[in-house]
Amino acid sequence: MGKSVFYHAGCPVCVSAEHDIINLIGTNNVEVVHIGEVRNRISEAEKAGVKSVPALVTPNGNVLHINFGAFMADVKG
Amino acid sequence: MGKSVFYHAGCPVCVSAEHDIINLIGTNNVEVVHIGEVRNRISEAEKAGVKSVPALVTPNGNVLHINFGAFMADVKG
Repeated sequence: MGKSVFYHAGCPVCVSAEHDIINLIGTNNVEVVHIGEVRNRISEAEKAGVKSVPALVTPNGNVLHINFGAFMADVKG
Repeated sequence: MGKSVFYHAGCPVCVSAEHDIINLIGTNNVEVVHIGEVRNRISEAEKAGVKSVPALVTPNGNVLHINFGAFMADVKG
């Protein structure tokens, strides 16, 4: 199985969800990307279909929006 | 690690998320509960903090609302 990508923006909801996802699927199976800091990956997240953070993009390309921290527009500022 | 519980109501968003969650965390690590059919578990889901389906309750009791299928009020009808 390929890696999933967890996009977040450092918000409390994001951090909590990140811990849960890592506990559930294992730290080796997920790449964590803080798009508030690594801003050149925002467009990649948007192309994948991420509408809000936190979100998990699965190895087969599905987007799971998990709870709600912020819209992408807010992350982009 | 204990089992997570995935609550859903049979909607297309629910089924898609169910497949993703099972692929990610393994079928042995998640109990799938269709609260549209197993209606005596609706109150259990609500007590756990489930506001909408699909939702995953982690072994430590956190609720991850995944995408959006329906509010609990709609499931209860």
